[in-house]
Amino acid sequence: MLKRVLPYAHQLIQSAIKAGDTVIDATCGNGHDTVILSHATGPDGLVYAFDVQAQAIEQTRNRLAEENITNVRLIHDGHQNVAAYLDDDDKKHLAGAIFNLGYLPGSDKTVITTPANTIVAIDQIAEYLKTGGIIVCVVYYGHSGGELEKNTLIKHLQNYDQKHFQVLQYGFLNQKNNPPFVLAIEKIKNLS
Amino acid sequence: MLKRVLPYAHQLIQSAIKAGDTVIDATCGNGHDTVILSHATGPDGLVYAFDVQAQAIEQTRNRLAEENITNVRLIHDGHQNVAAYLDDDDKKHLAGAIFNLGYLPGSDKTVITTPANTIVAIDQIAEYLKTGGIIVCVVYYGHSGGELEKNTLIKHLQNYDQKHFQVLQYGFLNQKNNPPFVLAIEKIKNLS
Repeated sequence: MLKRVLPYAHQLIQSAIKAGDTVIDATCGNGHDTVILSHATGPDGLVYAFDVQAQAIEQTRNRLAEENITNVRLIHDGHQNVAAYLDDDDKKHLAGAIFNLGYLPGSDKTVITTPANTIVAIDQIAEYLKTGGIIVCVVYYGHSGGELEKNTLIKHLQNYDQKHFQVLQYGFLNQKNNPPFVLAIEKIKNLS
Repeated sequence: MLKRVLPYAHQLIQSAIKAGDTVIDATCGNGHDTVILSHATGPDGLVYAFDVQAQAIEQTRNRLAEENITNVRLIHDGHQNVAAYLDDDDKKHLAGAIFNLGYLPGSDKTVITTPANTIVAIDQIAEYLKTGGIIVCVVYYGHSGGELEKNTLIKHLQNYDQKHFQVLQYGFLNQKNNPPFVLAIEKIKNLS
């Protein structure tokens, strides 16, 4: 059976993470993905969870407390500033990142991610990512400006060098109301 | 690791087939997929393998003979005529179909599949397909007319009713020379 978009996104990111890795939740939202990443990287690993919205940071903090999760650093800042928070050791063990692009589901649709910030963040993470690491973006584009963000991001990723990265698009073509789709960027071994 | 297009296509079709099923190789080409389908459906199953090119039928016949495969019916005809070859029992057990759209790899690039024939074949197979069955298309579009076939097919499949079908697109965005991508159509349980 064809995997739906969210289970597929989670399967991809989990396939790239092993115990002890560092991973990034670039848009922690309600903390759902943060919990998944925390379990995947385990007690010896580390999750950096970013969000520009105080509400998202608060929701995630509560969720982590409920589950007694302690391997997450919550950062109330935009993901475009990710590089400032990672030390050299983090960069060496960076196995993946997940982005929910668009808006925080169930929240204010006017607070959205922007293409410029998203691209800065993805480019930086892609640079630090270890071989075999994956950046998974779940792209919501049913809001005002969503179509532009989607197209800008796709155009940017089409220029990623195929010697170093595979960029995959996974999505359903016949669903109403602009359902989200996945963009995934895998760092591959340099063949040259 | 992100699965490349051909292994992903094979994984999808194999996941839908069980022993004893009927399946269709809509473009048997050199017989590579026909062999995969034959093994997946097993001695109690049946593979219908179509091709308009005599060369493809001959290559596939040789390949099947080498592997002592006997559960394949080779049909030298276009896949748009598929309905004429299936009896009621086949239609009841139809679990999947695979299409290589574009041209026979390694062969004459002027002999190509056409959007009109492809759409007739896919629509007929989709009608007969059992619930959970999958049609997998590997779309090559680097030849003259390829872009048109691709766009015509995508536009057609976007209109498939999401109550009955899921239509997935899976492909890489940053590879040169128009590499193939996958379109997969799964028949789902009618929820209404």
